Amino acid sequence: MNHSHLTANILGASGYVGGELLRILLGHSGIGIVAVTSESKVGKLVSHTHPNLRKVCSLKFVSNNNLPKADILFSCLPHGTLVKKIDEFIGKYEYLVDLSADFRLKDSVAYLKWYEFEHPKKEFLNQFTPGLVEIYRTKLKQSKKVCTMGCSATATILPLFPLVQEKIIDLENIIINIATGSSGSGNKPNIASHHAERANVMRAYKPVGHRHVAEVIQELNLPKTPAYSITASPLVRGINTIIHTKLIKELDEKAIRNIYRKYYSEEPFIRIVKEMGGFHRLPEPKILTGSNFCDIGFELDTENNHLVLISALDNLVKGAAGQAVQALNIMAGFEETEGLEFPGLHPM
Amino acid sequence: MNHSHLTANILGASGYVGGELLRILLGHSGIGIVAVTSESKVGKLVSHTHPNLRKVCSLKFVSNNNLPKADILFSCLPHGTLVKKIDEFIGKYEYLVDLSADFRLKDSVAYLKWYEFEHPKKEFLNQFTPGLVEIYRTKLKQSKKVCTMGCSATATILPLFPLVQEKIIDLENIIINIATGSSGSGNKPNIASHHAERANVMRAYKPVGHRHVAEVIQELNLPKTPAYSITASPLVRGINTIIHTKLIKELDEKAIRNIYRKYYSEEPFIRIVKEMGGFHRLPEPKILTGSNFCDIGFELDTENNHLVLISALDNLVKGAAGQAVQALNIMAGFEETEGLEFPGLHPM
Amino acid sequence: MNHSHLTANILGASGYVGGELLRILLGHSGIGIVAVTSESKVGKLVSHTHPNLRKVCSLKFVSNNNLPKADILFSCLPHGTLVKKIDEFIGKYEYLVDLSADFRLKDSVAYLKWYEFEHPKKEFLNQFTPGLVEIYRTKLKQSKKVCTMGCSATATILPLFPLVQEKIIDLENIIINIATGSSGSGNKPNIASHHAERANVMRAYKPVGHRHVAEVIQELNLPKTPAYSITASPLVRGINTIIHTKLIKELDEKAIRNIYRKYYSEEPFIRIVKEMGGFHRLPEPKILTGSNFCDIGFELDTENNHLVLISALDNLVKGAAGQAVQALNIMAGFEETEGLEFPGLHPM
Amino acid sequence: MNHSHLTANILGASGYVGGELLRILLGHSGIGIVAVTSESKVGKLVSHTHPNLRKVCSLKFVSNNNLPKADILFSCLPHGTLVKKIDEFIGKYEYLVDLSADFRLKDSVAYLKWYEFEHPKKEFLNQFTPGLVEIYRTKLKQSKKVCTMGCSATATILPLFPLVQEKIIDLENIIINIATGSSGSGNKPNIASHHAERANVMRAYKPVGHRHVAEVIQELNLPKTPAYSITASPLVRGINTIIHTKLIKELDEKAIRNIYRKYYSEEPFIRIVKEMGGFHRLPEPKILTGSNFCDIGFELDTENNHLVLISALDNLVKGAAGQAVQALNIMAGFEETEGLEFPGLHPM
Repeated sequence: MNHSHLTANILGASGYVGGELLRILLGHSGIGIVAVTSESKVGKLVSHTHPNLRKVCSLKFVSNNNLPKADILFSCLPHGTLVKKIDEFIGKYEYLVDLSADFRLKDSVAYLKWYEFEHPKKEFLNQFTPGLVEIYRTKLKQSKKVCTMGCSATATILPLFPLVQEKIIDLENIIINIATGSSGSGNKPNIASHHAERANVMRAYKPVGHRHVAEVIQELNLPKTPAYSITASPLVRGINTIIHTKLIKELDEKAIRNIYRKYYSEEPFIRIVKEMGGFHRLPEPKILTGSNFCDIGFELDTENNHLVLISALDNLVKGAAGQAVQALNIMAGFEETEGLEFPGLHPM
Repeated sequence: MNHSHLTANILGASGYVGGELLRILLGHSGIGIVAVTSESKVGKLVSHTHPNLRKVCSLKFVSNNNLPKADILFSCLPHGTLVKKIDEFIGKYEYLVDLSADFRLKDSVAYLKWYEFEHPKKEFLNQFTPGLVEIYRTKLKQSKKVCTMGCSATATILPLFPLVQEKIIDLENIIINIATGSSGSGNKPNIASHHAERANVMRAYKPVGHRHVAEVIQELNLPKTPAYSITASPLVRGINTIIHTKLIKELDEKAIRNIYRKYYSEEPFIRIVKEMGGFHRLPEPKILTGSNFCDIGFELDTENNHLVLISALDNLVKGAAGQAVQALNIMAGFEETEGLEFPGLHPM
Repeated sequence: MNHSHLTANILGASGYVGGELLRILLGHSGIGIVAVTSESKVGKLVSHTHPNLRKVCSLKFVSNNNLPKADILFSCLPHGTLVKKIDEFIGKYEYLVDLSADFRLKDSVAYLKWYEFEHPKKEFLNQFTPGLVEIYRTKLKQSKKVCTMGCSATATILPLFPLVQEKIIDLENIIINIATGSSGSGNKPNIASHHAERANVMRAYKPVGHRHVAEVIQELNLPKTPAYSITASPLVRGINTIIHTKLIKELDEKAIRNIYRKYYSEEPFIRIVKEMGGFHRLPEPKILTGSNFCDIGFELDTENNHLVLISALDNLVKGAAGQAVQALNIMAGFEETEGLEFPGLHPM
Repeated sequence: MNHSHLTANILGASGYVGGELLRILLGHSGIGIVAVTSESKVGKLVSHTHPNLRKVCSLKFVSNNNLPKADILFSCLPHGTLVKKIDEFIGKYEYLVDLSADFRLKDSVAYLKWYEFEHPKKEFLNQFTPGLVEIYRTKLKQSKKVCTMGCSATATILPLFPLVQEKIIDLENIIINIATGSSGSGNKPNIASHHAERANVMRAYKPVGHRHVAEVIQELNLPKTPAYSITASPLVRGINTIIHTKLIKELDEKAIRNIYRKYYSEEPFIRIVKEMGGFHRLPEPKILTGSNFCDIGFELDTENNHLVLISALDNLVKGAAGQAVQALNIMAGFEETEGLEFPGLHPM
């Protein structure tokens, strides 16, 4: 089922994820954007909010009432919003792509635990396939609804997945440290994100129990909650993870590299970054800004059987809008990389 | 008149200027802080807002009603606030130090033009001596009230003052470019100062006609309004100016250096920075963070008789709280440098 | 003359301009890269030096001796290098694109004055058309050799050109202030560019007489040397200019906007940015990273007939590699925007 | 033994630690600097290298041959340098303060393992007391030689020490993540520290086995090597640690706070930072720049008995020069806080 051309509406397009989705779709040869919504900016040019799109996009924001017909609905609405309105939209679109957390967790009990939220639409939870193409490619080909996973969860699940599948690490001993840029918390000003306060920080933001860990537990089928610490970094974009694990089999670095090769060597958006020398020998988010790559590396302390994984991605791209488009490309039969060709910049 | 010890109240101490004033006064051997006010934070620890003062200051914010008696009143209230309340305070303090723009302009017509503000207390305008000790030292010794000048105005007036006094530059041909850090616009969050938007900017903020130019015109007695452009830089603290002028006398760099020496060689907080080599050969704000220095340098294009002045200072110190304390030190007979000894850091 | 496909070699591809040229050409549908040279990195993967190109480019650096045949030669060699070797290359390529300063100045006397360099190949100076498509489009269609203009010169010439053509500003009274990112000075480490020293600077780097002004004088045919000050900003990429001029005709902002429209409204890579409100109302380099746009804005102080121009661009793209590809596209008959579609990111 | 005044020489004063030591000692009422050495900068003004010290320090660098007599010798020479020259100095000074790693490890076998270095002066190893006043105050009062501990080791040892002493955590399960600023690797330019490459990084620099862990093992008497990962952050100054541990006793947050109180409530340079609300509720290095504080906080995941410690300090102050002066103050009978009063800035 290869579509020559599909049309799309975007809900909540005035936020950072929405803007990035717009940028990507404007460069997608198979999708035309019909309408973009923002309740607070109705009638205003999209390029007023996303100034990088001047001369590139002449659309104006509309309200989400009475949207024109389209094939795809992307929702960048804040968490907890689409779930309340889904009945309005569900029958009208062939494809539904939700970039919020509303349908990520498959077990409604997890919503209670991590979001203190009694999910009102439990019947939909299993209809949304996670947007991690590297894990769900086959399933996505048969799906019509997709939910992207959280940016820090994506950066955690992708490096751990092959090792968990291969049963080589102790699932009860996983320590996840995440550093995030400021764009991850959206465009609502507050004192914590005020430039003079937020610049130059390494700020422990959520040292234990960030709710994105629920997605990690679910996708890796972990027997217990891993440590999951989130620190605010001075970057605007970019997730960097340092994950500590214990090997339960005796393996050397070559064997671990082979496991990653087995799972990811054909993946267009995963790169195993582990060079012998130079200062770019492990993943770092700096060079990924704007790109859809998730870079993964590792280092093994043989003496202590201690394996450290490092991953990096752009929270707004592979961690949100790029993941959404990659998944939609698979669902709708486009080339997987369509719209996602930008490789990132060096230096920056 | 050398006081062994004075007491002080600070109005509006929850802002960035107030916090910096607190930091400086806590290290001042001759002044004890009695009360600090913030209407929105009454009862809260000062160190909750200014976390650098933990273990250094155990004061809590109080309301500005019924303040305890003190010798000095510092006001860091927003522009337009003290002027309305001055009758409450005027008789109760020996020294009054205003860090706002309320009494900076001596001609009430200038308030109308630049602030669109009919000044309600014109009779006070001439009672406040500007806090520029380098120009007003003698007058300050006889003053009881001082107003600090704006940060960008201070960084402009100090390098130009000797050249204007010596009548060597064309007063009708002065072009002032100022780059400012984000702390200069205070601690009220808004979308323009949201970290993801404000990080990494070089943003023309006010290319013509910023109202601080009124102070420059007044202090230098300029015959016409100079060009005065303000650009937001990525720094949190720091003013950097590039001022273009035309010589009206034939002078070489040595002669210009001698003029600066004549005016400023004995000044404790002015440094003429013009080295022959190295990359620190001209002023830059980076090394001035936290210090009360105003560094001044210049370069002359002899072929075109074009003189470029460069100055740098910390907007919250020499551009506000440090200037206030330096002026108070002169007024009250303290050592001029008392409380202002911190030299700045390298690197940072 | 529309080529279906051309081949290209790149000299000096291990620098920042070379890396950016590679990134752009890898996304260009009509050009295939044959060989890339770096004398110090022969045999090493390009992606080791430009890690954003991992999985995108599998080329290795070769020496510039015995290059394979190709249609286009791009030279990113340092200033003064190509001019010595041009005889080796001149007859072998249909198109020659030089990204250095070696052939920018058309008058060899200017090389003596600004570069203290007796140009050894004066006969070539007029064969290289400047890469400013907005000015030289017609001529470029007949050219086979192009030289890109310096990044700060480009950011200066483009906003001034229409006003100079229309004879509305005083050519003897132009004051140019430029803030540049660190990538503009290349990838050779030194103490001035050491991170701890270079981070957080606003550093007057060349307050008078930067040699790029020679290009500005030439392209605008100025009767005298304008003031031209360069300041190092904390950015990695990005040029920001503030240009002060005096109107010699009485014009309002609308009239000035109309002049810009006349010259640039059809230009794909120039945007007139002058909005009524919001904080993105004037150009800023932040949103241009990676894009080929030059954004131009202005503000008029009617009272003083003082016109301030603001421009912004990415020094490695519109200021170098993007300019080169845009010009080559015109010379070789490709779509002007081919390879240059990336619009930049927001936020970042 | 309270000295009214001591004199000091500084070896290797042109580096970042040396500059910071100078800044601190210039504000120390009981110590006068006699000579500062730099073999590569003999005869040059100290303020040429450390421009923050202009008008504050008029010393010039001298060679380390034929130093004038002084009471204290501070050595900021690179690792491996003082150990070779110590016989030259040992008898000439009453106090010896080494800021390198040369005498930190008490077991010469550890030098072999972590530094691949056969220590040539084993007899001195036990003569140098570690500069951690919080642990060695009593011993320092009887010492004449002190060695500062590494910046990342200091930031690790101080938060762990009370918990290890109280035997409440599993010593075999400690995971240490450290983010460091660029000043920590000194002032020698190289491509990894070139601004365009080093800006905006979160770069896994040493994910396993950084040699500073040897100091942690030694000071905490750990039965095995803990995980110790170092990541380069975009900061110039500042260490931030996230340490994961497992409680082996059932304790709540209040009990842990009480342990920290027991050990540190009287410490002038340790602050327990754990607030109920606000965004400064845990330690962060931003506000510590220039100060000698080590801030310590924690968060407990009761469900998993997982305790996360967070600490922050300025690597050049509490992590080096400040630690040295604090220890010297104790050894020589000065007030512990002398010279170290600067509290840090907010915002910055």
